[in-house]
Amino acid sequence: MELHTTLSKIFPPSQLSQEPETLHEYSLALNGSLCTPAAIVWPEHESELLALVQAANQHGLTLHPVAQGKNWGYGTAQGTQPNQIIVNLSRLSRVLEINDTQAYVRIQPGITQSQLYHALQEASSELQLDITAAGLHTSMVGNILERGFGHTDYADRFGHVQSMRVLLPTGEIITTGMGMFEHSVASHLYPYGTGPILQGLFSQSNLGIVLEMTLALQPKPAYQATVIVICPQEDDAPKMVATIGKLKLEGVVTSGVHTVSMTRAMGEQARKAPGAWVLTTSLAGPKKIVKARYQYFKQTLKQQIPGAKILLLDNFRWRLLDQLNQYLKSPLIDGLKLVLDLKQGVPSDAAIQTLLDHPTASSAMKTSEFPACFRWICAVSSHSREDIANMLSICRRLFREYGYEERYSMTNVNERAVVLIANIRFGKTEPEIEKANRFHHAIDNALLAAGYCPYRSGSGLFDTIKPFVNKEHLALLAKLKQSLDPNHILSPGKYWLEYPATKPTPETLAEAATEPPSQPVA
Amino acid sequence: MELHTTLSKIFPPSQLSQEPETLHEYSLALNGSLCTPAAIVWPEHESELLALVQAANQHGLTLHPVAQGKNWGYGTAQGTQPNQIIVNLSRLSRVLEINDTQAYVRIQPGITQSQLYHALQEASSELQLDITAAGLHTSMVGNILERGFGHTDYADRFGHVQSMRVLLPTGEIITTGMGMFEHSVASHLYPYGTGPILQGLFSQSNLGIVLEMTLALQPKPAYQATVIVICPQEDDAPKMVATIGKLKLEGVVTSGVHTVSMTRAMGEQARKAPGAWVLTTSLAGPKKIVKARYQYFKQTLKQQIPGAKILLLDNFRWRLLDQLNQYLKSPLIDGLKLVLDLKQGVPSDAAIQTLLDHPTASSAMKTSEFPACFRWICAVSSHSREDIANMLSICRRLFREYGYEERYSMTNVNERAVVLIANIRFGKTEPEIEKANRFHHAIDNALLAAGYCPYRSGSGLFDTIKPFVNKEHLALLAKLKQSLDPNHILSPGKYWLEYPATKPTPETLAEAATEPPSQPVA
Repeated sequence: MELHTTLSKIFPPSQLSQEPETLHEYSLALNGSLCTPAAIVWPEHESELLALVQAANQHGLTLHPVAQGKNWGYGTAQGTQPNQIIVNLSRLSRVLEINDTQAYVRIQPGITQSQLYHALQEASSELQLDITAAGLHTSMVGNILERGFGHTDYADRFGHVQSMRVLLPTGEIITTGMGMFEHSVASHLYPYGTGPILQGLFSQSNLGIVLEMTLALQPKPAYQATVIVICPQEDDAPKMVATIGKLKLEGVVTSGVHTVSMTRAMGEQARKAPGAWVLTTSLAGPKKIVKARYQYFKQTLKQQIPGAKILLLDNFRWRLLDQLNQYLKSPLIDGLKLVLDLKQGVPSDAAIQTLLDHPTASSAMKTSEFPACFRWICAVSSHSREDIANMLSICRRLFREYGYEERYSMTNVNERAVVLIANIRFGKTEPEIEKANRFHHAIDNALLAAGYCPYRSGSGLFDTIKPFVNKEHLALLAKLKQSLDPNHILSPGKYWLEYPATKPTPETLAEAATEPPSQPVA
Repeated sequence: MELHTTLSKIFPPSQLSQEPETLHEYSLALNGSLCTPAAIVWPEHESELLALVQAANQHGLTLHPVAQGKNWGYGTAQGTQPNQIIVNLSRLSRVLEINDTQAYVRIQPGITQSQLYHALQEASSELQLDITAAGLHTSMVGNILERGFGHTDYADRFGHVQSMRVLLPTGEIITTGMGMFEHSVASHLYPYGTGPILQGLFSQSNLGIVLEMTLALQPKPAYQATVIVICPQEDDAPKMVATIGKLKLEGVVTSGVHTVSMTRAMGEQARKAPGAWVLTTSLAGPKKIVKARYQYFKQTLKQQIPGAKILLLDNFRWRLLDQLNQYLKSPLIDGLKLVLDLKQGVPSDAAIQTLLDHPTASSAMKTSEFPACFRWICAVSSHSREDIANMLSICRRLFREYGYEERYSMTNVNERAVVLIANIRFGKTEPEIEKANRFHHAIDNALLAAGYCPYRSGSGLFDTIKPFVNKEHLALLAKLKQSLDPNHILSPGKYWLEYPATKPTPETLAEAATEPPSQPVA
């Protein structure tokens, strides 16, 4: 059956497009690549999504679900291959529950950071968000499924998912966590459930479409202090990251801690800024405890990096500074507002404006409207000084060889691991895109070869990484994909979940299904 | 081929038994049930395990791996069905690495709590264990895979698994976490890896045999205080658990907190004890921070439960008390030693002795040597006062109806969920076992029907729970089992991973494998 006819049976014209202009918009990724889809659909009800999945199995369609389609720098809304149907979930955007007592929200995949923030405000909720700097109009669920991390004590966002309702590629709906039971008082409170833990299968994968997520939120702390540390020396970074590692192992620092090169933090303003690196973190809780933690933090950091400038900003101090700045008009102080917002879960588009050095950039922009191309580079390291120094030196060599400005952030994402994120910005012309591709190929390979592997990836980026993944792991992924999505309707190849190298034939499968003797040989 | 011949090709006589006496020992569970295996094997090398898995696939054998076989109260070492080969992994008991800098250990599945404790001592390691009260000779890996929880800041033990090497039922070996890459500097530091998170698949399941586990350990804190709260009233428990829930949400309490009925804490000594419930927790970290946290803890608890007696015991105070007790000879003070040990990761058999009211009971005992039968009952709840009160009242009604002594512990296992664990002790005679079975059937069903579902289960216990699990979830488990273990060689039925209700035929599988059109209809 012709694709349009098939889709029109499910979606009214307002929820379906095959217009060339729309297809072109969805074909773009911010790294300058193209991958043209066959259609875009915007389901507004779960029943439409279910009908779509059934049609895909029946007619051999391939679907590529996106939440808001703003996975910038990691493939944007591109499908994994051309000619896929992009399933844009942005109209499934209800906040299903705000539970202040048990400290969670239940949300649909289309909910943006801004929508959820405002829903909490309107409900006068006592819960606070953990957000990323990606901006107002980006999806909560989309980013969390890709394991993006934030800035507060709940920075490990995927680690705070309590339960998910998932539409499987074969059309059934399951619920992870204690939602696996017909009735559990802890449905939204205990993510492990009973039996194997299935939640992780649906993160960074193509094994289901998440219809609903229960996300644990932190109750607004009695007191919150944003701590900012500025280090003067270019080579202070490994010491900074290692010291935070120690403080996290001691339980003194519990939030996501970001150590950022001044250029990354400030964009073009960096030239006026007084240091090489800036570290930001949040200490939250009852005031006396926060004060004791801050004292220990300051003492430890001063010991390790005597030249560090350490600043504590709580709401009281910020109000004073903000008033003062009505006269000072310092862009550095303006920049602080973004940091404070991030540490308190208040979304804004300020970080995107810095990233693009473009004062009116907004996360509502279409991909085609971005003033420049960019792509993220990411790598996971230990927090040892040697590893951090080595990882940075690999990056530096290549950034300098290719002549790009160095912009790095390093986040202590847990007690032991650090994620580096770097990026380049480049023009939209063919030669600039071609040069950036060569750079990305070189830096991805150099980091992977040295054991600094990415924490996430995206459409168009999987092939570079694949040779570095164990063969047995790839074979297991292929088995899982074959089992849960036998017709491979969902984003084939995403995170290497694809047909096995030697695809099973009906014969090999029949062999595998041969029943073992009903009684063991005994 | 005859089973003995098959196994003898892999294992020398010292690693294989089909002796009736040994089979009988392994047939026993502590709830008084019997399930006789066909053989026991004790692999000493991974190569033997691999050969066994291959033989199982070839000859239709069924394997049931146990670590130490001491899963007391949850099926002990019983197979999921009669006539299985029990694979006892206790001789794979090497500590492969102690890494003080990155704060983890790598261990084989046979390692006991005591062996790991002594290995850390011998290496003068600065890391501390998180242990359960199950005793010296129980397996670390076995309990962690069943998601048993402990007493320190690392009480969520499975949540601290960084990576696992797993032998799949089809004979391949994979590594979870960043170990999925050929080379990663974060192999043991970032459990998510890249792509879907697979670690959870091998916990409470039968999808693989864990050959090696990387477990994050907490560096010994600069200061540690054990806090003990005694509450006089029987109906204080819901308030206690709810208050701890609040303190955990505020980040003030970060360890596993156990609220225990005096009979459970003290056994027969309880009659001399001064309260109805005792709550224990650990506060660890730099001393000034711990002191600030303790002040807040005390103030909050006193406000909620004015009659509570609160005691802080650090190493200094304990030494004084211990010296004093040379004259006082108080069994209550002796009892405190067990609590302090648990909070500092020092394993002992003291809890087993209390559980069984038997002063010489030891975790080295064979199942047949236990002086009494017992079984655990467990249920997950919220920490709301209503839920806790309701859950306890369901238990009370049945404990009283059947005339068993009430022994409860409730653990705030995370910021939102509470796990109740109860148990009865009963004689080994047929009528006593039969009565206990009736009791267990009644209490399991009453708790499940009210939404208080178990956090774990075990051989012989799965069938009671199964009717309460969603059908779609069971179907997904069957798919996963079929895919990863096509010949169902590993513990069939464990945690409901079993043949699908309608088992796939070669024809349905061949159908599922039909290749979709190579180009979508577009």
